[in-house]
Amino acid sequence: MSRSHSFGFKLLAQDKGSKARLGQLATPHGKVDTPVFMPVGTKATVKAMTPEDMEQLGAGIILSNAYHLYLRPGHELIRDLGGLHKFMHWPGAILTDSGGYQLFSLSDFCKITEQGVNFQSHIDGGAKHLITPEIAVQIQQALGSDIIMPLDECLAYPSEYEHALASTQRTSRWAQRCKAAHDQGNSALFGIVQGGIYKDLREQCALELLKLDFAGYAVGGLSVGEPKAMMYEIVAHTVDFLPEQKPRYAMGLGSPEDLFECVARGIDMFDCVMPTRHARNGMLFTSNGRLVIKHAQYADDAKPIAAECGCYTCRHYSRAYLRHLYVSGEILAARLNTIHNLYFYLDLMRQIRHSIARSTFSELRRDFKSRYKHRR
Amino acid sequence: MSRSHSFGFKLLAQDKGSKARLGQLATPHGKVDTPVFMPVGTKATVKAMTPEDMEQLGAGIILSNAYHLYLRPGHELIRDLGGLHKFMHWPGAILTDSGGYQLFSLSDFCKITEQGVNFQSHIDGGAKHLITPEIAVQIQQALGSDIIMPLDECLAYPSEYEHALASTQRTSRWAQRCKAAHDQGNSALFGIVQGGIYKDLREQCALELLKLDFAGYAVGGLSVGEPKAMMYEIVAHTVDFLPEQKPRYAMGLGSPEDLFECVARGIDMFDCVMPTRHARNGMLFTSNGRLVIKHAQYADDAKPIAAECGCYTCRHYSRAYLRHLYVSGEILAARLNTIHNLYFYLDLMRQIRHSIARSTFSELRRDFKSRYKHRR
Repeated sequence: MSRSHSFGFKLLAQDKGSKARLGQLATPHGKVDTPVFMPVGTKATVKAMTPEDMEQLGAGIILSNAYHLYLRPGHELIRDLGGLHKFMHWPGAILTDSGGYQLFSLSDFCKITEQGVNFQSHIDGGAKHLITPEIAVQIQQALGSDIIMPLDECLAYPSEYEHALASTQRTSRWAQRCKAAHDQGNSALFGIVQGGIYKDLREQCALELLKLDFAGYAVGGLSVGEPKAMMYEIVAHTVDFLPEQKPRYAMGLGSPEDLFECVARGIDMFDCVMPTRHARNGMLFTSNGRLVIKHAQYADDAKPIAAECGCYTCRHYSRAYLRHLYVSGEILAARLNTIHNLYFYLDLMRQIRHSIARSTFSELRRDFKSRYKHRR
Repeated sequence: MSRSHSFGFKLLAQDKGSKARLGQLATPHGKVDTPVFMPVGTKATVKAMTPEDMEQLGAGIILSNAYHLYLRPGHELIRDLGGLHKFMHWPGAILTDSGGYQLFSLSDFCKITEQGVNFQSHIDGGAKHLITPEIAVQIQQALGSDIIMPLDECLAYPSEYEHALASTQRTSRWAQRCKAAHDQGNSALFGIVQGGIYKDLREQCALELLKLDFAGYAVGGLSVGEPKAMMYEIVAHTVDFLPEQKPRYAMGLGSPEDLFECVARGIDMFDCVMPTRHARNGMLFTSNGRLVIKHAQYADDAKPIAAECGCYTCRHYSRAYLRHLYVSGEILAARLNTIHNLYFYLDLMRQIRHSIARSTFSELRRDFKSRYKHRR
């Protein structure tokens, strides 16, 4: 267990044929079995879901976003209303991203200095903001997050080596400042390894962060356009420098294949908008591949999305009905599709955990791969 | 009880101080206490709600729309998939409107002849359609509706007397053809009294319909722009010609005040998009009046929408959170707001039924009126 009073990580089992591992996170808001997928609730709601829906799906931890909540409705307002858990009526654990990625991708104007990130936002009519590493931690502490992510710079792909070097070193210095600013005992602060596609920078960054002894370590800057093989290689390479006894989090990943590949490389935690966003766009996950519900072939299809699926949507609704809702623009489409996709992701993680416990992860991974590539 | 095998109406109590009455509808999909409000599920879904949500709210009957379902996804498709109840996974009763009102208000082109209504729709790229009284009944029988409404013409307000006379007489002839076409024993066919604001036409139409002995009688063509006092007068006048032992349905009504005023005039059944549509627009009902959740005054308001409300939304969420969801355009806003507004409507009907049973309807009506007019 780590030093923090309420936060901890136990390693429970290690796969023989890969670096996959079974573990358990302890948080002030419950225990979470790993490897775990964290559904994304950017603006204090997993889109279209109630907290009760999330509990029924078996989610124990969700991700929210400090950048978005800082801008609207404001972290101090949320703190004054009793914190993010109470605000959104979510009893489980919450990891907040600092919003480094969003700062660069969503701001109207964004300038990085050693001090922090200066930006303007369309949300408040172009007001100027400065987020420093210290402020990023303060925001997340005000929200009452169980797991806090430091401010980092997410490198674009491709990035020149010199730029990547300077950026990664600054991210390491920012991590140090975040660590110094973190003074809330019941929250856990993770470190984020950056370094782009440069293995020496990944190593350097990991080693710098290790000196600071974070409660967990994230691999950041993935899935920004680099080839899949390169992404998996960077994950494997980075994990090699991370301690066994701390949780490892691959930020922003991923597709079902990514989950398998990164679990096999020793990752414990994932988050991605894919299941929720795809759901709203009518793209539904099945173990055979993705199903695009708007296609005319489903118009009179009485079957559920997936015969083997045990989710609420598959137990009660036909593809024909789901297609009707989707093409009619009905709100219920987003909800039923999101239930299905999140169930698929969370159930996949349950299967992965069971397989690690039973030493059958390699078979599960192989079986999944052979079925999943057949797209419908 | 009426003649139909599965459908019936029992009159259980009559208010002393008004024409309000307590009753019970028996349908092939359960019993429904009246006066009842039927939430609107136009396109085979009460917007943003699952059937389980509706059951938890205490809804026993919902309204759907034959015109919309005929165009998309098609009534024959729904029939082939086992009917509307199965299609939308709703175990309760369903009343379908024939869509007369929608034909006139939503069609790109619409022409009425004695035969029926010719129209074009944008849904299918301007294809030409003809809905006759017989087809309207066939569509609803294919859907498997518990209560079927005949094809009628909903008069605009104002309408010239000569036009209203011709239209109302045609609506009566259409009702006769609907009656002749209705051959599904376990569904109930209602009659719709039209006549605009002309009392003699309302009387004439009611008397024509009575000869056909429908399972229930609707007052149609209300709330189309006429003054409230005139609407209530037409309701009262029309009800005078309707039999005691049959349910009476005021189509498309209404506001909370309308419910009280029309119950007092002997109406048993209501439907209206107001609670669901207002919810999606952030207008929330309370016993003190409507609350517009986007207003800045609610930004840091830790209180629920209504302190006395027992709905899921009020038990778990603050106005501040609901405002945040609404201004952020989150799907959950529509859902939580709809739960609240439907709970308000259905709870109001429960209060009304209890008050009729306890002979306190007049007090309830007076108390509601005196509180509700104070808008926040």
